[in-house]
Amino acid sequence: MAKDNRLKIIPLGGLEQIGMNITAFEYGDSIIVVDCGLAFPEDDMYGIDLVIPDVTYLVDNIDKVKGFFITHGHEDHIGSLPYVLKDVNVPIYATKLTMGLIEHKLKEHGMLQNVRRKVVKYGDTMNAGDFRVEFIRTNHSIQDAAALAIYSPAGIVVHTGDFKVDYTPVFGDAIDLQRLGELGKKGVLALMCDSTNAERPGFTQSERTVGKTFESIFADNVNKRIIVATFASNVDRVQQIINTAEKFGRKVAVEGRSMVSIIATASELGYLNIPNNTLVELEALKNYPDEKTVIITTGSQGESMAALPRMAANLHKKITIKPNDLIIFSSNPIPGNEKAVSKVINDLYRKGASVIFQDTHVSGHACQEEIKLIYSLVRPKYAIPVHGEYRHLVAQAKIAEELGIDKQNIFIMKSGEVLALSEFGASVTGCVPNGAILVDGLGIGDVGNIVLHDRQRLADDGIIIVFLVLEAGTGRVLSGPDIISRGFVYIRGSESLLDEATQVCCETVGDLESRGVTDWNKIKSEIRDSLGDYVWKKTMRSPIILPVIMEINE
Amino acid sequence: MAKDNRLKIIPLGGLEQIGMNITAFEYGDSIIVVDCGLAFPEDDMYGIDLVIPDVTYLVDNIDKVKGFFITHGHEDHIGSLPYVLKDVNVPIYATKLTMGLIEHKLKEHGMLQNVRRKVVKYGDTMNAGDFRVEFIRTNHSIQDAAALAIYSPAGIVVHTGDFKVDYTPVFGDAIDLQRLGELGKKGVLALMCDSTNAERPGFTQSERTVGKTFESIFADNVNKRIIVATFASNVDRVQQIINTAEKFGRKVAVEGRSMVSIIATASELGYLNIPNNTLVELEALKNYPDEKTVIITTGSQGESMAALPRMAANLHKKITIKPNDLIIFSSNPIPGNEKAVSKVINDLYRKGASVIFQDTHVSGHACQEEIKLIYSLVRPKYAIPVHGEYRHLVAQAKIAEELGIDKQNIFIMKSGEVLALSEFGASVTGCVPNGAILVDGLGIGDVGNIVLHDRQRLADDGIIIVFLVLEAGTGRVLSGPDIISRGFVYIRGSESLLDEATQVCCETVGDLESRGVTDWNKIKSEIRDSLGDYVWKKTMRSPIILPVIMEINE
Repeated sequence: MAKDNRLKIIPLGGLEQIGMNITAFEYGDSIIVVDCGLAFPEDDMYGIDLVIPDVTYLVDNIDKVKGFFITHGHEDHIGSLPYVLKDVNVPIYATKLTMGLIEHKLKEHGMLQNVRRKVVKYGDTMNAGDFRVEFIRTNHSIQDAAALAIYSPAGIVVHTGDFKVDYTPVFGDAIDLQRLGELGKKGVLALMCDSTNAERPGFTQSERTVGKTFESIFADNVNKRIIVATFASNVDRVQQIINTAEKFGRKVAVEGRSMVSIIATASELGYLNIPNNTLVELEALKNYPDEKTVIITTGSQGESMAALPRMAANLHKKITIKPNDLIIFSSNPIPGNEKAVSKVINDLYRKGASVIFQDTHVSGHACQEEIKLIYSLVRPKYAIPVHGEYRHLVAQAKIAEELGIDKQNIFIMKSGEVLALSEFGASVTGCVPNGAILVDGLGIGDVGNIVLHDRQRLADDGIIIVFLVLEAGTGRVLSGPDIISRGFVYIRGSESLLDEATQVCCETVGDLESRGVTDWNKIKSEIRDSLGDYVWKKTMRSPIILPVIMEINE
Repeated sequence: MAKDNRLKIIPLGGLEQIGMNITAFEYGDSIIVVDCGLAFPEDDMYGIDLVIPDVTYLVDNIDKVKGFFITHGHEDHIGSLPYVLKDVNVPIYATKLTMGLIEHKLKEHGMLQNVRRKVVKYGDTMNAGDFRVEFIRTNHSIQDAAALAIYSPAGIVVHTGDFKVDYTPVFGDAIDLQRLGELGKKGVLALMCDSTNAERPGFTQSERTVGKTFESIFADNVNKRIIVATFASNVDRVQQIINTAEKFGRKVAVEGRSMVSIIATASELGYLNIPNNTLVELEALKNYPDEKTVIITTGSQGESMAALPRMAANLHKKITIKPNDLIIFSSNPIPGNEKAVSKVINDLYRKGASVIFQDTHVSGHACQEEIKLIYSLVRPKYAIPVHGEYRHLVAQAKIAEELGIDKQNIFIMKSGEVLALSEFGASVTGCVPNGAILVDGLGIGDVGNIVLHDRQRLADDGIIIVFLVLEAGTGRVLSGPDIISRGFVYIRGSESLLDEATQVCCETVGDLESRGVTDWNKIKSEIRDSLGDYVWKKTMRSPIILPVIMEINE
């Protein structure tokens, strides 16, 4: 078997992590890319705003790259497009709402004119070099989500994107199980299936169940103003809040930048059905009694700059939390956000408000029974669990094995690995450049491990700067050593410590001078050592010690 | 009613927060203190090791203070003793195991000889000035936990400490509900009850249920080595693991400093019953087949320096994780630790090990039905929910109200508030000094808001130091301005940015020189402004800008 007849699958991100989903498919002279997402920074990535994938492999093979095929409009699937398109400007294929959200993003980056875009309908098949790509309807926590059937000469790959099976979705139809079955019947080479909830038994509940919960909460609280916080991108959730509000004769206002913008895009494109005279401007709410209003807002994850946390902390200009408010968190805390969410709940209670933070959310991802269903319809030769941390990938691999897929045909991949496969075999054949590029403010990639490591040390123990003026040529000390610190100790109250530290530097410098040492590196390293030892002994802290030498021609 | 006839309750910590429990009770010339705990730092307290309470009020009234009465041996109830005793050296009263753990701590701080200690039995009553204090048996996730009945001339206060109701505890007897009922019959002025689980309906399960789960897991995994991670202080859990191991003919080794030390204390004092020939040294494990061994270890919260996380990350010197290992997390992640725990699970799976992280833990705190039971036995006039964030205190207040306690008699207190109460009324009468003192290495209180704020800015955006040598008298520039940065950008790759930044400083300094400005404050502030503006425009970052001026006599 010649290698050329094999399909290569190359995830450039999204494996062993949540977020930054991007996968290249290569056959012969053609490459297509599925999704182009970002990740949010880890806790120890101080000062970082977001994380994008290294696409060196795409740049190096730019002539082959035929297009981006996007499964749905969430940040972890579209968020890196404005950055990546600068170097890899190829057409984007996506369903209508997904494309609407991408266009909004490109507009913000001033790139809308320069990018070719093609809106795709479910059932459409796009040609891209040696590939054909079909978009298949799925359900998720945002509408217009698609699975992709990727046809290559080596066989068909089904990529689910993020999905759940919702037999009674709020908008549109249920996932196209028939088509997945039909493809399975035809013969599918590999299935790449969402692993996010692969550790959870059972079936994810229908989005519609949340609507019923809203109705009972609204019925129980007819005398309160209701504020609902949820994910901006969960348009179906917003639809259900609006429906419930209308049913109970309440006006609805929307607050929070991302929420306003997604609702505008979704209703413009027909994905949100707003009954007449229901939506009002925030400013107009004062014309209605509190108990006849609902505010839909952002910040359900406790993000300190978002609307609800600002209301709770008394920092919001337009909305003041009152004892007669009922706040509903229509969301679960994403792991890592629990404490931030709890802080907001505490703040709301302090204002006397009521808070509901349970049973008003369902996941957008498939649980174990749904994953089994998809495997049973598609019946792939190879299983490649995607979207998840390692534990989630392992959990799906276990399910695949239980369903009779040969253990050797299940691949838990790492980002950057090249999996070459055909009917006749599959193996990891190598690795391409890959990794995380950090975005901090306007800087892309100018903060790496060295800078992060410095930030971590600065955060833990601060910095002591030792400065010294020497005479050029002789190395005689003209001024200093003096020291100054930031983030180390409270200076007033630690005078004697700092005086002694200066004394340690003086002794070191005096000793070096008497030994006739003029090598700056030697001087700096001895200052670092002696001051570092002294500081550790006195405080058990390890601030960065930064000796600075200036030279003057006397 | 003269104010002197009222009892004052003054929490100095532990309210609106988890941890740092310490409450003063004052009547006439007597003060007693219940617990003396520490808190762990919040996420934004960079570099801080632990947090202790401000006890200025006790120091100012040292002549009144009769003793510390400790409810149980957890860090959030005993951890501040070594720090606080330096200024408030009064006797400590505690049950046997609690005192054993306190003594271990005092020994580490070299303070054992200087502190008076009195071991108390359940049912004992200690006199302390105008107070008498009775220790009442409760259940918790550590043995020898006590509720306190505090008798004052103004009435009896019952303080539950941390507790649950365990009808079938692993060691010792169930909580002394009869005595609580008897006190209630007598008439209790106020109940201070644990709120940690007040949001959770139902009843916390008995510790014994975990033992049953261990048995079924051990039975299912007779061919694997088993490693169990749990809280070092949960001696009953350790007992159950040892019992199960013995039943299945496995040897047990213990790894992790705090685990080894608590097991030593507990078995020395008779709280742990280790069957002969069950416990072996870690080094001796190699003499037994893997499937005949169990390792009990620390790090169930993902703490990077603890034993299990180090094993998972290949950093442990003595234990290597193997594909035939089964790791049991006998714990739930404490909010805020979810990501760290998940990282350890991923690392373990990468080594091919099996992991169980569900259904092998029960809480040590009372849920709603248990709280109702305590209220119904004690029937206090006043309810003061303690131990918990604001949301938990509110949840208990709601329960108290449902049980018929007058809303006006329920007090959700803040740390530092003084609640004065008697049969005839209760009110918050003032506030005493209170707060959190940060411990960083050997420094106690030398890191405060200014240093923390600097550390946060350093962490987010780093620091740029601008240095400049001026001629004394004339203010002529002899050298510089030069700049150096840490944690700002990767220097190689950002040369032109840094060159331009230097240029900006040169222009500012040149301009100042030509205007004859020699005021250092003025020079520094203009450098900060011009360089800060430039950097923000170019990078959208706000590093600390630290101008340093040295003066030379030319």
